[in-house]
Amino acid sequence: MSELVKEFNDYRSKMNDKILADNNKIIKRIFNLDTNAFAAGALDVKTKELLGLVASTVLRCDDCIKYHLEASYKAGVPKEQVVETLGIATLIGGTIVIPHLRRAYEYWDALETQS
Amino acid sequence: MSELVKEFNDYRSKMNDKILADNNKIIKRIFNLDTNAFAAGALDVKTKELLGLVASTVLRCDDCIKYHLEASYKAGVPKEQVVETLGIATLIGGTIVIPHLRRAYEYWDALETQS
Amino acid sequence: MSELVKEFNDYRSKMNDKILADNNKIIKRIFNLDTNAFAAGALDVKTKELLGLVASTVLRCDDCIKYHLEASYKAGVPKEQVVETLGIATLIGGTIVIPHLRRAYEYWDALETQS
Amino acid sequence: MSELVKEFNDYRSKMNDKILADNNKIIKRIFNLDTNAFAAGALDVKTKELLGLVASTVLRCDDCIKYHLEASYKAGVPKEQVVETLGIATLIGGTIVIPHLRRAYEYWDALETQS
Amino acid sequence: MSELVKEFNDYRSKMNDKILADNNKIIKRIFNLDTNAFAAGALDVKTKELLGLVASTVLRCDDCIKYHLEASYKAGVPKEQVVETLGIATLIGGTIVIPHLRRAYEYWDALETQS
Amino acid sequence: MSELVKEFNDYRSKMNDKILADNNKIIKRIFNLDTNAFAAGALDVKTKELLGLVASTVLRCDDCIKYHLEASYKAGVPKEQVVETLGIATLIGGTIVIPHLRRAYEYWDALETQS
Repeated sequence: MSELVKEFNDYRSKMNDKILADNNKIIKRIFNLDTNAFAAGALDVKTKELLGLVASTVLRCDDCIKYHLEASYKAGVPKEQVVETLGIATLIGGTIVIPHLRRAYEYWDALETQS
Repeated sequence: MSELVKEFNDYRSKMNDKILADNNKIIKRIFNLDTNAFAAGALDVKTKELLGLVASTVLRCDDCIKYHLEASYKAGVPKEQVVETLGIATLIGGTIVIPHLRRAYEYWDALETQS
Repeated sequence: MSELVKEFNDYRSKMNDKILADNNKIIKRIFNLDTNAFAAGALDVKTKELLGLVASTVLRCDDCIKYHLEASYKAGVPKEQVVETLGIATLIGGTIVIPHLRRAYEYWDALETQS
Repeated sequence: MSELVKEFNDYRSKMNDKILADNNKIIKRIFNLDTNAFAAGALDVKTKELLGLVASTVLRCDDCIKYHLEASYKAGVPKEQVVETLGIATLIGGTIVIPHLRRAYEYWDALETQS
Repeated sequence: MSELVKEFNDYRSKMNDKILADNNKIIKRIFNLDTNAFAAGALDVKTKELLGLVASTVLRCDDCIKYHLEASYKAGVPKEQVVETLGIATLIGGTIVIPHLRRAYEYWDALETQS
Repeated sequence: MSELVKEFNDYRSKMNDKILADNNKIIKRIFNLDTNAFAAGALDVKTKELLGLVASTVLRCDDCIKYHLEASYKAGVPKEQVVETLGIATLIGGTIVIPHLRRAYEYWDALETQS
């Protein structure tokens, strides 16, 4: 597995365990809701992941972008759709989004080359 | 037509005309890109409007929310999909999004009752 | 009751009813969590309301500011503590917070004069 | 004087008086710094007002935009420079800035027609 | 002392010295206000640090979070109160806050293990 | 050339090439607009770079700050003007801007020592 992908997932999973072990009700329920919200419903999983991706990108959260890129990749979203989503994010969010676009491209490459 | 919908569209269209009459190259091109970005491509129009909606909602821009709600409505997106999109926005963006959720529901109602 | 306070609460309560009637699981649970998070725990209610107030102020959400001002007022938080909280918010969030400070002062006045 | 301009300035000045009468040290000093920061220094007043305008616009603060538009107008900044500044703000901040652009154009018009 | 804590404080203190040596009046006064705002007043130091923490967290500023975690730790704020504050921040600011929550937990651990 | 400056520019340029090679129309045009918007017009290049700098700073985008610091440096903007711009950004954006101020000073130093 790509070093970039592995490092992100290892840290994420190690710290999530610590946070959840703490048993704060509010935080635990928000983590639960997160799993729920991206399950298939009136919208399918792929569309929901792209919604998560565009929201994460305009809010300029690198870790959230990585997370939704990876989930999109695993759900089989084609690169063209990911790129159109990032294009919409850059237009809505402005050039301030571009540094995150660079890291998004790098992470997507890492996802593709790791297989 | 609902007063809320009419007022929003009249002001928006009057001021857009003023802005574009000014012939600033940067601003005109951004307006053009906006039309382009939401046309069908690797993603269809309905999905793109929901991407615009979730981005507008987490960025807490009431006018942008209204615009994408109306475009979604005209494109035939069912309410269930709009609500799931708003749910994802509220989870990602937090309770700070709720006041915008209220106005989004009010505007969607106005769209539905105006027909 | 002050017109400003009444209008805010009437609209808020009318639209919350509409939103909750819609039965979207994510949104309903976030509304529930909101009630939970501000109940007494390791921190008392007054402190939690001030936490909600400072967060709402730096995020520049007028309706959220009104909500936490009113909850603080009802919980008996003295004005001096509210003002110190708003001062910290203005320092952390910058002068961009000042327009919200004006509306916060106006709403607090409305709360005090309505009794 | 234009109703839009008068209303903005009256409310702003009434509430500033209330806030300053409260004698919170942090808030009073931030108000003072604000006057200081926009006085001529290594940069002249016109340039500083445009810096204030672009910052207010990307942060999407309507009242701050109005304030810096008015100060720019009084300092004699030509409309072409104001529009180029708003163009840069729209590019950096994205289409999410456009609703504020509309209100900025409306306020500038009000400033010009009031003389 | 923990490497994470030492590195943060060393860089912070080295760069603050550089910034203050520059003698820009606005910046120096803002640094001064920062010290003032968190001193005991109508609210005690512990409460003020939690206000600083929740504001820093919803604004997603890692360095500011570290700073207020450390000040809270030194002021003797118990972990339960820190965690409740982070829970409120996550609810208000949304899941976009979670990556900062991970780093906050890591820093708090570093503070506890360094003693 | 300073390591800090070289590393930033190398990564930026490598990833920009990747992004542009992808031929997404929206993203390519936004990149083009970016070059256009900062060319001399009603405002000169130096003023426009300071507008870009203050906007990047209040939006807390380190890479954007670096980019505009470097463009300002190459355009011959004196340090006093850069610092006044950063002062205005810190006042408008609040103390949350300070961590970015530290990195801005570090990058400016790197630009000056590399010559």
